[in-house]
Amino acid sequence: MSDVLPQPDDVLAASARIAPHADVTPVLQAGSIDDAAGCTLRFKAEHLQRAGAFKFRGACNAVWALEAAQAGRGVVTHSSGNHGAALALAARSRGIACHVVVPAGAVATKLAAIARYGAVLHRCDATLGSREATCEQVRQMTGATMVHPYADARVIAGQGTAALELLQAAGALDDLVVPVGGGGLAAGSALALQVRAAHTRLVLAEPRGADDALRSLRAGRRVETLVPETVCDGLRGLLGSPNFAILGAHRSGDGAAPVEVIPVDDADTVAAQRMLATRTKQLVEPSSAIALAAVLGAPARFAGRRVGIVLSGGNVDPDRLAWLH
Amino acid sequence: MSDVLPQPDDVLAASARIAPHADVTPVLQAGSIDDAAGCTLRFKAEHLQRAGAFKFRGACNAVWALEAAQAGRGVVTHSSGNHGAALALAARSRGIACHVVVPAGAVATKLAAIARYGAVLHRCDATLGSREATCEQVRQMTGATMVHPYADARVIAGQGTAALELLQAAGALDDLVVPVGGGGLAAGSALALQVRAAHTRLVLAEPRGADDALRSLRAGRRVETLVPETVCDGLRGLLGSPNFAILGAHRSGDGAAPVEVIPVDDADTVAAQRMLATRTKQLVEPSSAIALAAVLGAPARFAGRRVGIVLSGGNVDPDRLAWLH
Repeated sequence: MSDVLPQPDDVLAASARIAPHADVTPVLQAGSIDDAAGCTLRFKAEHLQRAGAFKFRGACNAVWALEAAQAGRGVVTHSSGNHGAALALAARSRGIACHVVVPAGAVATKLAAIARYGAVLHRCDATLGSREATCEQVRQMTGATMVHPYADARVIAGQGTAALELLQAAGALDDLVVPVGGGGLAAGSALALQVRAAHTRLVLAEPRGADDALRSLRAGRRVETLVPETVCDGLRGLLGSPNFAILGAHRSGDGAAPVEVIPVDDADTVAAQRMLATRTKQLVEPSSAIALAAVLGAPARFAGRRVGIVLSGGNVDPDRLAWLH
Repeated sequence: MSDVLPQPDDVLAASARIAPHADVTPVLQAGSIDDAAGCTLRFKAEHLQRAGAFKFRGACNAVWALEAAQAGRGVVTHSSGNHGAALALAARSRGIACHVVVPAGAVATKLAAIARYGAVLHRCDATLGSREATCEQVRQMTGATMVHPYADARVIAGQGTAALELLQAAGALDDLVVPVGGGGLAAGSALALQVRAAHTRLVLAEPRGADDALRSLRAGRRVETLVPETVCDGLRGLLGSPNFAILGAHRSGDGAAPVEVIPVDDADTVAAQRMLATRTKQLVEPSSAIALAAVLGAPARFAGRRVGIVLSGGNVDPDRLAWLH
């Protein structure tokens, strides 16, 4: 990871860089969900992005930003799922090697996707220490460049392109609600708003059982220990250091409002996932549905507003759909 | 129902008539499903149609084809689900009354949709006799026009517009695969091919436990008794009389090939539904997934061909998703 924080303009550069490779996903709407929420919702359908999640944007930006010699030695990351698949596909788009360190207990469908895209899987224990050590081993053996899932300037800039496209398709928004885990999408979205929509408020939806972003932003310093307990398997990571720095400094509008964080109970997230399935026929991850749950749970906050939501991914393991059991 | 069979040109007229009301649904593709199937698939996403199914097309065509005085007395139908919701929404689009006779045991989410669109629900027993008698009672009391779910010329012509749009978006197809129950979509698709794609073969996917279309077309006369046993709740109806006449007479290509019917086991249908969910994030009914199952089950038949599939509806009751239990 670079020590230099990504800047708002880096999102524009990322948008141009990934354009030949990433899909411009559709923006969905559903009148019956608007009625239930009491506001006007526009959903950026990143579950329909290549590899099934917004993660392809950041991975693609990182891979294509490498100089040729460095790219030739490949890339490496650790990921329990979507970032691994995204980096594998991004690497394949450039014809370079990709190594993915996967912790024990990762979701089966996500591992299958990573392998299908041609990456080499390296198993490790489910601790952060084991992940990082295994990555370092691979890096030393191959010379591959580490592409962190979220604490990486190029990844953050790439993730911001989803918000750019949403603003372009949906027009002005009062609020943009995105899920927060490690903060790649959240920080990238902040940069996108800074460059294109200074008045749109940024709202982060976070599992109540993994609420380190809420506590970190409130305290003004990163919470560095947390035992996450949530069905949102994509949001169990701790907010990264550059992500925290960007989000902590972000302000919107004349009142210079800071980033808001809404903690969400898993039961509400699961209900929102089910609502999206029945009303829009779209199967998204709990880590995506949480953003809708945050809006549905705060009707006074969002009443009558135009709200953008990034549906971040759709890589659901059907056997784990709790609301169906 | 009119005694006059709909003609190919009626599909073009229907297309113009419903254009202000129905959505032009997207055409989806998925490389990983193409790989599994060994052919090139184009999915017409009618689960994203208004009211969640292609049925809105036929209902809308029937409602808007009525003369003003007749329309003013409303419409009536019997339906276990999608057609009822579709007719309710179509009637609302014209500001007229809609009565829907619903049999005991119908899917809860479908009844809720019918009521949400403003129709009056009339409960009856789950026999065809009870449905028809109740419809007749409503008709006599209100003067409403009966709009049969499938054995109706205007409904058939309306259903054909999905195939028209698919051909327009996807270009030439070697095969068009649609599910068959009562035969509204099947017969409408036959007319659409006659007017626009004389060389495209028409293939019907039918539950093995409700295979009256297969046996009727093979015998040259309608099988009129059958106890359907299938998870495809949209495909339990018997092939209608005009539907049978159209499908029995349909031929394609220089060899004048008749309509093919592929019987599909429920387990294969459920596997296809799951594949669509994991690979495309789309939640469709078993009655829709059966068309993909038919293709996956006959790799030699479809190898290397360009195949269109109509994903007919997405009104799934999550509690009944068998593959998730």
